[in-house]
Amino acid sequence: MQTVGVIGGGQLARMMQPAAIALGINLAVFAEAEGSSAHNAVTKVGDYTDLSQLREFAKSVDVITFDHEHVPTELLRQLESEGVRVRPGPDALIHAQNKLVMRSRLAELGLPQPHWAEITSSEDLEAFISKHGPEVVVKTPIGGYDGKGVRVISSSLEVSDWLENLASYGSLLAEQKVPFISEAAQLIARRPSGEAKTWPLVQTIQSGGVCSEVVAPYPTASLGNQGSEIAQSIANGLGVTGVMAVEMFVLEDGSLLVNELAMRPHNSGHFSIEGSHTSQFEQHLRAVLDLPMGDTGMRGGFAVMLNLLGVDDVNNFYEHYPLVMAEFPSVSFHLYQKAARSGRKMGHLTLLGSDFRELLETGRRARSMIYREV
Amino acid sequence: MQTVGVIGGGQLARMMQPAAIALGINLAVFAEAEGSSAHNAVTKVGDYTDLSQLREFAKSVDVITFDHEHVPTELLRQLESEGVRVRPGPDALIHAQNKLVMRSRLAELGLPQPHWAEITSSEDLEAFISKHGPEVVVKTPIGGYDGKGVRVISSSLEVSDWLENLASYGSLLAEQKVPFISEAAQLIARRPSGEAKTWPLVQTIQSGGVCSEVVAPYPTASLGNQGSEIAQSIANGLGVTGVMAVEMFVLEDGSLLVNELAMRPHNSGHFSIEGSHTSQFEQHLRAVLDLPMGDTGMRGGFAVMLNLLGVDDVNNFYEHYPLVMAEFPSVSFHLYQKAARSGRKMGHLTLLGSDFRELLETGRRARSMIYREV
Repeated sequence: MQTVGVIGGGQLARMMQPAAIALGINLAVFAEAEGSSAHNAVTKVGDYTDLSQLREFAKSVDVITFDHEHVPTELLRQLESEGVRVRPGPDALIHAQNKLVMRSRLAELGLPQPHWAEITSSEDLEAFISKHGPEVVVKTPIGGYDGKGVRVISSSLEVSDWLENLASYGSLLAEQKVPFISEAAQLIARRPSGEAKTWPLVQTIQSGGVCSEVVAPYPTASLGNQGSEIAQSIANGLGVTGVMAVEMFVLEDGSLLVNELAMRPHNSGHFSIEGSHTSQFEQHLRAVLDLPMGDTGMRGGFAVMLNLLGVDDVNNFYEHYPLVMAEFPSVSFHLYQKAARSGRKMGHLTLLGSDFRELLETGRRARSMIYREV
Repeated sequence: MQTVGVIGGGQLARMMQPAAIALGINLAVFAEAEGSSAHNAVTKVGDYTDLSQLREFAKSVDVITFDHEHVPTELLRQLESEGVRVRPGPDALIHAQNKLVMRSRLAELGLPQPHWAEITSSEDLEAFISKHGPEVVVKTPIGGYDGKGVRVISSSLEVSDWLENLASYGSLLAEQKVPFISEAAQLIARRPSGEAKTWPLVQTIQSGGVCSEVVAPYPTASLGNQGSEIAQSIANGLGVTGVMAVEMFVLEDGSLLVNELAMRPHNSGHFSIEGSHTSQFEQHLRAVLDLPMGDTGMRGGFAVMLNLLGVDDVNNFYEHYPLVMAEFPSVSFHLYQKAARSGRKMGHLTLLGSDFRELLETGRRARSMIYREV
């Protein structure tokens, strides 16, 4: 049996464990600190920006994959040149690490995306605002997630701190502020030999720049296969290995524009643990091991996933288990064993059933109960 | 968060891990040897018949439960008297450890079971054969499982080795050879505060005394609630904590007789990992922690589970993954990371769908492919 090595000890590595246990393979996690969410599978604690530590970890596993996208590309290129199997490889991963590289590549592939421009001066930005404003979105190309490194502005003065530090950012990315009616995510997994499978398109409901809820499948059928086709083009075009999430804007006319890419299991795919015949975590392991892809169909009806974000430094949600489990016996709980902190992704709930509105309503009531002060 | 301690490092302890990861609780396993199936969660390797080792393990956990039923009752009584939470407790567990104690208690509870007698001499046995023969079943009260310690005989001479060693067995148990038309199992979980929930009754298909396949729910509705009512009576009557499986014979007139009890997650409940809203492993953890029971309804349609038994000392089934996964994308795989050995329970397959005959047929084709010589 083989060993998959995961860099990063967060909840994504944590949730790969049940899939590894089912498949009977080994999982080894390289965590950045003691007491990580994936602590059960941690075999090394260290610094993922240190090549010698990465090398040492690589020797203990058959393939390297990721819980996050923060490992510097040049280190991954070096490992690859030394014969380490890195999946997704650095040439694909760069598109999830650098939003400018991603925009540029998607343009080459002719895929639908917001108007965008590379910004290297306030003049560039003012010109973009004149053309696509009054409001536009400015992003740092690297390191942003969950609303961090993203600002909606109407004047270059609102990102003057970023413009003054262009040396550290390289360039900035300006994007049209898309008049979307909702948001969607398309999950896909692809293995090195080329086979790729998509899950059903899902609706993502954001709150404060962070994913709050997911409804799978996307409740209106009118969007057709666009999501799947876009994800296939990206996965094949970029040579992605493993799970990729394509976050998209849904426009009033039913068309989709690509917002962001993530090349790893993703929050928008947690529904698949209970909802799909093959979860995103199992599919990711299959993909990085170049095993055939599992069935991505739903087990029946809808799956609704609700994130549990920390409410304060005290409520770790466990105290509410007796009450909430008694009131909501059909809710599936996932807690990530993280210390309580306001806004932190600490767990999620999943509900399955035929009426997604009812599931959302029930899930929200369960979450309110969990959020109560302890 | 709490820690559940499991004595025994087999596949049942292994399959408690995903449930513990989801619930965000800790699992600690006391294994009898290195390299056990539950190796990821092992915190102690030692001898479970040694009180001081059990005591030491107990100190590291909040509650003790089991992967098997072999821990001597008197040691568990001692631990309990020292304040350790043992679930199921020894007074309940004894009924799964000792088949004579079980028969006697079920008789007191007035539950349906085969004719039986305690045997302390060949004369006892010949008398039982005259009354209930020509063939009867003789069992050693303790230590038998998967067909071991069980013989179908028509003369006391066929168990003369057991009769000559009555000192080591105490007594033997003789049972009527039941003219059953099929076999069933009823899974239930009960928590200390009394709440109990049953899953749907399932059909078990045995081969050579070992469970080969399970169809959930039992495909004919005519059996009604008997299974659930019997399991509730036993769970309440014996004060069971955690999951209990009641194996039963189905008679031609549609009535059920209790065959065996297991007080832990059980092979007949593996279908629940994919098939039920709450798996037997999660429910067991909830129960021993005295948390409310989850929904035991099916996620939809039927679930069919097929055991993977070792075919020789070479085929560990992994070599067949590429072929079988490609041919059967909707099959869920479970390998227990055990060394290959003929007849050994090394894994199982689960299939979900609306037509149980089709699922069985597909599952058997997948299993044949896995069994092929490597």
